[in-house]
Amino acid sequence: MSPQIEAKIRASFAKQSMMNTFGAKLAHVGAGSVAITAPILEGSKQQQGFAHAALTFAIGDSSAGYAALSVMPEDHEVLTTEMKINLLAPGTGDHLIARGRVIKPGRRLVIVQSDVFALSNGQEKQIAVLLGTMVPVPIAA
Amino acid sequence: MSPQIEAKIRASFAKQSMMNTFGAKLAHVGAGSVAITAPILEGSKQQQGFAHAALTFAIGDSSAGYAALSVMPEDHEVLTTEMKINLLAPGTGDHLIARGRVIKPGRRLVIVQSDVFALSNGQEKQIAVLLGTMVPVPIAA
Amino acid sequence: MSPQIEAKIRASFAKQSMMNTFGAKLAHVGAGSVAITAPILEGSKQQQGFAHAALTFAIGDSSAGYAALSVMPEDHEVLTTEMKINLLAPGTGDHLIARGRVIKPGRRLVIVQSDVFALSNGQEKQIAVLLGTMVPVPIAA
Amino acid sequence: MSPQIEAKIRASFAKQSMMNTFGAKLAHVGAGSVAITAPILEGSKQQQGFAHAALTFAIGDSSAGYAALSVMPEDHEVLTTEMKINLLAPGTGDHLIARGRVIKPGRRLVIVQSDVFALSNGQEKQIAVLLGTMVPVPIAA
Repeated sequence: MSPQIEAKIRASFAKQSMMNTFGAKLAHVGAGSVAITAPILEGSKQQQGFAHAALTFAIGDSSAGYAALSVMPEDHEVLTTEMKINLLAPGTGDHLIARGRVIKPGRRLVIVQSDVFALSNGQEKQIAVLLGTMVPVPIAA
Repeated sequence: MSPQIEAKIRASFAKQSMMNTFGAKLAHVGAGSVAITAPILEGSKQQQGFAHAALTFAIGDSSAGYAALSVMPEDHEVLTTEMKINLLAPGTGDHLIARGRVIKPGRRLVIVQSDVFALSNGQEKQIAVLLGTMVPVPIAA
Repeated sequence: MSPQIEAKIRASFAKQSMMNTFGAKLAHVGAGSVAITAPILEGSKQQQGFAHAALTFAIGDSSAGYAALSVMPEDHEVLTTEMKINLLAPGTGDHLIARGRVIKPGRRLVIVQSDVFALSNGQEKQIAVLLGTMVPVPIAA
Repeated sequence: MSPQIEAKIRASFAKQSMMNTFGAKLAHVGAGSVAITAPILEGSKQQQGFAHAALTFAIGDSSAGYAALSVMPEDHEVLTTEMKINLLAPGTGDHLIARGRVIKPGRRLVIVQSDVFALSNGQEKQIAVLLGTMVPVPIAA
């Protein structure tokens, strides 16, 4: 992956105000794989006090989207067109980490997956899997 | 729908700190159908300045979940086990509204759908559809 | 819908040998909505003797795909890129009918839905809902 | 995996008349992973002559379902409640093979995945990925 593409991913991430609201950070940026971590903030919870599914979705979807962006031409960005999430366990602990990867690159559609884990006392437990489709769109000049 | 079940839904919603972070509100609570609105806050955006998909997901998923809760016995709550979202258009404008409903009630699984719309100058435009499954769980005594 | 597009749909359906294997027929061809019926043949069953989910999927997916095709330019065909099915009840009875429709047309992607029903003694019961994405592809000259 | 559970899987497979219609066979039965192969028969094609998505779905769904069954108590069977398929490439060649596995076992729900490949001259190419949910149901005495 070129430094330009890594810089594009980092700049796009920084522009997502939602990521800032969630305290999320890019933990890894590689060719075809991107990881995002987020703390389970007081304001990111569901009714039982666990991580809200929207937080799990947010970092799962974004990690998968940036994994797709990492394998696209520089003059493109990427939009999610559909995403399915299966929730496996409650999001307990301190932090979540989402590891997104490209399953199938393509000029028109990129199929992606993300696995999301909860971290508690240094132990990882998988809490979700996401499978979806990203659409490359040319960046307006 | 009994006043007890409506009260249970309102109490559960109030406990979701994520809904407060998003400024989301219950707009309608009916038997088998629930609507949730949320402003597109400065902190709820993606990299192009539109509503973040996690906001769309959050209110779509919650509206569907509370629609399921509205048709369950009082001593149960509900968890999302899986949810698919198809994004139809960018979330532009001032507010989003998600209208969730029960497609198929059941003792073990409740199939739900939610349609999410963006409101701009009083005009509604559909931006997403969600289809998923809720699991009833007995409330611990 | 032009007669040319209806003819294109009927010709495409006739070329799907799987539809013939299933005894499936086009029951309705309209602009943005297509219905397909199929008997529950002896060879189309799962282990309990109900209609196999692959039959439900097949006519649900095809009805949605042809609904998409009905709103596309004549020189395009359509491919499913992703489809989710929620199964609501066993496929009992004599026949299934799938009613596909376009939720959101588009130049690059068409979002579609299909509802599938089982018919038993003239009574319809919904057994599945499908939500997915069709991709228009130009027909090679 | 006990011989009883393997026998239960083989007996269930044999009762699926749809598998016989497709010429499908169990290629591997292991604890938490099951593979199914099927030829691309003349009667299993879509309009362009490739394997029909319903064939891909059928063996993907069944391989995932039997993977779930392999980790369940003997007195249970399994039903698909929802399944999403992303189609990655056309199903060309002679045979398909689906490799299903359990992602997350559970007493109420089992989350499963299947990868489907097309075989052409001994070369495998992935054509689909499925992600879904199986429900254990007690076998009626």
